[in-house]
Amino acid sequence: MDSYLAEIKGVILSINPEAEIVEATRKVEAGNIRQGAYLLGRYFKYYPEGTIHLAVVDPGVGSRRSPILLETKGYFFAGPDNGVFSYVLEEEKAELAIKLTNSEYQLLSASRTFDGRDIFAPTAAYLSLGIDPREFGPELEEIETFKIPKPEMRGEQIEGEIVHIDHFGNVVTNIPLELLSEVGRFVTMNVKGRAINKLVTSYKDGKDYEFFVITGSGGTLEISSFGKDAAGGLDVSPGDKVYLTTVKT
Amino acid sequence: MDSYLAEIKGVILSINPEAEIVEATRKVEAGNIRQGAYLLGRYFKYYPEGTIHLAVVDPGVGSRRSPILLETKGYFFAGPDNGVFSYVLEEEKAELAIKLTNSEYQLLSASRTFDGRDIFAPTAAYLSLGIDPREFGPELEEIETFKIPKPEMRGEQIEGEIVHIDHFGNVVTNIPLELLSEVGRFVTMNVKGRAINKLVTSYKDGKDYEFFVITGSGGTLEISSFGKDAAGGLDVSPGDKVYLTTVKT
Amino acid sequence: MDSYLAEIKGVILSINPEAEIVEATRKVEAGNIRQGAYLLGRYFKYYPEGTIHLAVVDPGVGSRRSPILLETKGYFFAGPDNGVFSYVLEEEKAELAIKLTNSEYQLLSASRTFDGRDIFAPTAAYLSLGIDPREFGPELEEIETFKIPKPEMRGEQIEGEIVHIDHFGNVVTNIPLELLSEVGRFVTMNVKGRAINKLVTSYKDGKDYEFFVITGSGGTLEISSFGKDAAGGLDVSPGDKVYLTTVKT
Repeated sequence: MDSYLAEIKGVILSINPEAEIVEATRKVEAGNIRQGAYLLGRYFKYYPEGTIHLAVVDPGVGSRRSPILLETKGYFFAGPDNGVFSYVLEEEKAELAIKLTNSEYQLLSASRTFDGRDIFAPTAAYLSLGIDPREFGPELEEIETFKIPKPEMRGEQIEGEIVHIDHFGNVVTNIPLELLSEVGRFVTMNVKGRAINKLVTSYKDGKDYEFFVITGSGGTLEISSFGKDAAGGLDVSPGDKVYLTTVKT
Repeated sequence: MDSYLAEIKGVILSINPEAEIVEATRKVEAGNIRQGAYLLGRYFKYYPEGTIHLAVVDPGVGSRRSPILLETKGYFFAGPDNGVFSYVLEEEKAELAIKLTNSEYQLLSASRTFDGRDIFAPTAAYLSLGIDPREFGPELEEIETFKIPKPEMRGEQIEGEIVHIDHFGNVVTNIPLELLSEVGRFVTMNVKGRAINKLVTSYKDGKDYEFFVITGSGGTLEISSFGKDAAGGLDVSPGDKVYLTTVKT
Repeated sequence: MDSYLAEIKGVILSINPEAEIVEATRKVEAGNIRQGAYLLGRYFKYYPEGTIHLAVVDPGVGSRRSPILLETKGYFFAGPDNGVFSYVLEEEKAELAIKLTNSEYQLLSASRTFDGRDIFAPTAAYLSLGIDPREFGPELEEIETFKIPKPEMRGEQIEGEIVHIDHFGNVVTNIPLELLSEVGRFVTMNVKGRAINKLVTSYKDGKDYEFFVITGSGGTLEISSFGKDAAGGLDVSPGDKVYLTTVKT
């Protein structure tokens, strides 16, 4: 029950009526930068080269964190310098980062609580019209990223972490299928003292098990439950550790 | 809090940047094929001829059910062969059904958990570029449908069924207004032992009644409550029977 | 879990396949005309001149309230004559109001429960094709508006009202920052017997306070709580009074 996204779209279309706006997701939890960063990291690469991605997960709006424009080989990203581009920068090198200071390309506003509308949206719109990124402000040397948890080998066990829960309740870990394939054969995944012993390749194959492990669409192992909310059933959240036991093949 | 729909849109635009994507609904209950089928059956016919409809309600993804492309006189439909096109096929004849096997028109993926992104989206995008449907795979002789409940005459009573609850709580039955008109005059509708005696033509006309019957926008009778959640108040769900009593006019 | 918005989009595209449809919000509470009016009032002005705004918050559909088309200097608005354009008409003068009676530009339907699809959508689509507004029906002399609450001076205190709660739980009042600036310096805002003594310019600046006052993106004062649901914490709703105490500067 907000007008915020509608305002952002209007600002963009007022500057560039030919802009094609694609709504990615409006469901990021309020202020959850890690979740926003993870989701952006999942979908940005499916878009055509040159796409301008807007990220408006911005609890620090109006404070010292800078509004930025990021350019990589394939894409542009406009948003706050609060770590929301951390997953993107795992996969893409920053070619250019600009601090958005040029008010000529921003909306005047009585408040500093909605940079999404007042700074990021006009930046994206002017950029789509061909304005040079360097027009928007000075170059930044460094941008904020948070540490992305990596799976670690402990003997033949892999210690991973839950990085996301999707709306079906699937529990997404950071352990790529390839890592499992390199190390050995799946034996069991432990989470919160519970052992999950079944690895399947389709949800239906797991339908007789309370929980099972499956390779998710992001390419990492997930814990699921057929037709049920696995995360709720296991009472787990992002940040919880998972332990994958394997045997050499 | 998912990137799934954003990924689908990106895949389509990467293949055909000129594609116009319309988001129908992202609110189908997880794995509820009947609900998805019903909603698709409600809206597909309002779209321009040639529209490609994507249906990604796919609990059996990766299992034996086939990914398919369906062509009718007016439209194309891409989705799983799990019954999700049952309501469509009540109104449109299948001219051609293709099993989507040609990996040339699909995304390579480590998992088989997201055919929406890896198969249906690229199929729709290539189709929109003019690729011949028969390029995508072999013809299918039969496709899966579930039995759609039909109202039945029992003397002057009509036995119908609840087929949908909308987000206002309106209780949608499968009894068309025309059937009532043919049979006689409305007397009462019974559901779960409760009699609803008022038939109105606008919600406001029913505002002094706890529940009333009204012809809904899908052309069938609905049970509603002014400004309230009728389904919640009556504690009914899709599949519950309703009994309509009439008198000859 | 509805097909309603999908139907509206289909109707528009069937009449004008070139129409560009922007989804503003589908989250207005069922039948909450005031909320819909407020949100429309917030976002309409960010859109390019000539934009046709559809407002489908329509609990009185099918009753005596008229379906209308409104033309202002910058925009068109199609929707029910139930007050949903009240906030718009605070800022824009109605140049022309038409009662939508010409069935040539409407969909035939067995029901009168979905004017959004059957009247407003086709009106918007035909209008976008260049049909003259006067083709749609006779001119209306008056249109329905509700009284919009205005802040009032009581000595050096300003009595305002809560007009909206956003999805973060921010409590939006109707007191513009400019009014505060004219009157004096902020001392405290009282709501439901509770005094909020801190005025900040960014959410982060308020992070050590349970609640604080901030100028929101609509230009009026809001009560917020860093990373928390202020409206829930204060147990307030739209319509509740707020009292702003100031001192002369």
